[in-house]
Amino acid sequence: MFKPEDVWTDVQRIRADAPLVHNITNYVVMNTTANALLAIGASPVMAHAAEEVEDMVSLARALVINIGTLSPPWIAAMLKAGSAARRRSLPIVLDPVGAGATRFRTETARQILKETPPAIVRGNASEIRALYYAESETKGVDSRHAADAAAEAAQGLSEKHGCVVSVSGPVDMIFSGDRLVRVANGHPMMPRVTGLGCTASALTGAFAAVNPSPFEAAVHAMAVMGMAGEMAAELSPGPASFQTHFLDALYRLDEEDIRSRLRIEPA
Amino acid sequence: MFKPEDVWTDVQRIRADAPLVHNITNYVVMNTTANALLAIGASPVMAHAAEEVEDMVSLARALVINIGTLSPPWIAAMLKAGSAARRRSLPIVLDPVGAGATRFRTETARQILKETPPAIVRGNASEIRALYYAESETKGVDSRHAADAAAEAAQGLSEKHGCVVSVSGPVDMIFSGDRLVRVANGHPMMPRVTGLGCTASALTGAFAAVNPSPFEAAVHAMAVMGMAGEMAAELSPGPASFQTHFLDALYRLDEEDIRSRLRIEPA
Amino acid sequence: MFKPEDVWTDVQRIRADAPLVHNITNYVVMNTTANALLAIGASPVMAHAAEEVEDMVSLARALVINIGTLSPPWIAAMLKAGSAARRRSLPIVLDPVGAGATRFRTETARQILKETPPAIVRGNASEIRALYYAESETKGVDSRHAADAAAEAAQGLSEKHGCVVSVSGPVDMIFSGDRLVRVANGHPMMPRVTGLGCTASALTGAFAAVNPSPFEAAVHAMAVMGMAGEMAAELSPGPASFQTHFLDALYRLDEEDIRSRLRIEPA
Repeated sequence: MFKPEDVWTDVQRIRADAPLVHNITNYVVMNTTANALLAIGASPVMAHAAEEVEDMVSLARALVINIGTLSPPWIAAMLKAGSAARRRSLPIVLDPVGAGATRFRTETARQILKETPPAIVRGNASEIRALYYAESETKGVDSRHAADAAAEAAQGLSEKHGCVVSVSGPVDMIFSGDRLVRVANGHPMMPRVTGLGCTASALTGAFAAVNPSPFEAAVHAMAVMGMAGEMAAELSPGPASFQTHFLDALYRLDEEDIRSRLRIEPA
Repeated sequence: MFKPEDVWTDVQRIRADAPLVHNITNYVVMNTTANALLAIGASPVMAHAAEEVEDMVSLARALVINIGTLSPPWIAAMLKAGSAARRRSLPIVLDPVGAGATRFRTETARQILKETPPAIVRGNASEIRALYYAESETKGVDSRHAADAAAEAAQGLSEKHGCVVSVSGPVDMIFSGDRLVRVANGHPMMPRVTGLGCTASALTGAFAAVNPSPFEAAVHAMAVMGMAGEMAAELSPGPASFQTHFLDALYRLDEEDIRSRLRIEPA
Repeated sequence: MFKPEDVWTDVQRIRADAPLVHNITNYVVMNTTANALLAIGASPVMAHAAEEVEDMVSLARALVINIGTLSPPWIAAMLKAGSAARRRSLPIVLDPVGAGATRFRTETARQILKETPPAIVRGNASEIRALYYAESETKGVDSRHAADAAAEAAQGLSEKHGCVVSVSGPVDMIFSGDRLVRVANGHPMMPRVTGLGCTASALTGAFAAVNPSPFEAAVHAMAVMGMAGEMAAELSPGPASFQTHFLDALYRLDEEDIRSRLRIEPA
């Protein structure tokens, strides 16, 4: 488990199957997350109308719900899509963008967590803390806590809701109950590009579409994010060229890249 | 007709006139299609409020309607803008993104086709089939049929609605009734970038703004898409650098590029 | 005032403080303006729901209102956020995208100007004229007047509303009442990239977050835009590579770049 060949197997499955990943996500990242899904080999679709989300879910192999630019009609569609995904036993990935920054976001994320339980919650340390604790201390949507500080909250959330909790940070932590895996791949340029956290959630959806273990899917997705980030950083003088090289790296990632770069603990 | 010098004439007209192209399009591609229109020399505007679409149409030389991220208020605005464009004899380009994937999209595309008949429908093979046949078999928004398989549907749609039908694929097919032109320009990297189909529709709007023949406009636009794609592919290790080089190629495309690359049949 | 060291001081403040800039902006530019804010060192957040804008404003150090893809629910949120920002004495930057193109935009921009007076209005010559005069002559959203032609309108608007008015063009003009500063930095490629005007407004928000003088903030922001544009143009064969290099330049901009490039008059 969590060996390079397992990551590579999932990447190959995505490229072979091109699973449809249905995203109800924020305006800021729709383009870049669709491109990330295409680059790794999946088929993205964005659809948010209550009139069609159930039909779209019926074609998809994973559903990604991201609350980054929320409004009431979108919440209704998220819940409707989430219920349809549950009925079909589709994996749901929830990205609680900005939870803790406003009550609206925190409460919406908690409502989704409760009414349409996701297989995987993927957020930064602040967001995960905001979901678990009653506090409200997130500043905006970027992380204000070291990932470690969120460990307690992530484990608690995982145990309480029976879901995998994937916390991105300099070292990513992925919890499944009391099991913890750390992914040490990545690069400091990554938080300087908008929406790479959202991209991590979208890719987590692609891996969950081909791997029946949400824990493995979450770990593999974060590892691929981090390795592609390292490959991009070697070529990039700034964050915009980094975004370009990052997507190209997802497209080009091969077995040898994974074998030489993967840093998962415990391996 | 369909000679390199005619394509070049249209490109020069776009660059000289900078025609305003009004887009009611999806969230995923707004940025990249606006940039494609600017790169080729047109002036893009995105406006979707029922309160202003008629005013905006009155300033525009073409209207592009794209149903990629649909919701009821947007449909109302599309129909209102379409009616205003019809009254002004403006060319309308309809991109039925995802028609066939959900009933909502299929029915909306058909409603627009009926109530505000477009000069040009531009879609992939699945979408064109979904519009013409009663079936519902599109998987998401990318093409699941070879372009050839859509030939019958495209010709039927063109004859029934009196519009040009432009089907993108490895070889593009553009129908005007029983007339067919094939454009063999393009590159396999193109479907790996989100929204290049939508970009084709936006550019079709720019060409329709300067060329009174919708058939010529549709063919020239697909040829320019394909040639820019070939130019980009020569420089691009992956789909994100491809997107960048593609837009740069639209900006730099010159008479010699067209003369050496154009592959239209029958020429 | 308006010396290279003052521009550099503000850039350093932004990088040190990473001020949260709350944007209620248009769909076309959300990704690129968020990336521009991150590249210069600020923390962007996009939030537009009436349910949360007051909470988000309470965390922010500047509010940027951009009317580029307007609809009634967004106007309500803009006014609510603007009122909250006024109560907290937060600087508001208004970008009246497309004012003059439709009555809906012109009237909305005027309503915001009146009900939640901004510290800074940043627009192109057509938009500033449309706000000041009763006429309606903007063609789309790009400038149809030389910046100079808007000088009278900009000064009048500044005096009438007691705000700074920043007019972008080949030479930018920034008015504070009867005081005028010109910024001669920039490059002709800039209008060929969608949303660089919106990016100027977003960066103006970042500078206003760290500099208590809206006049200085507006001038410094336009200077940084122009210098980054010059740096990008040296590396870019077309507008898409320009966008990438522009964001990288914001990230890399250092004291020596500013010292060698700054062209503000009077210095």
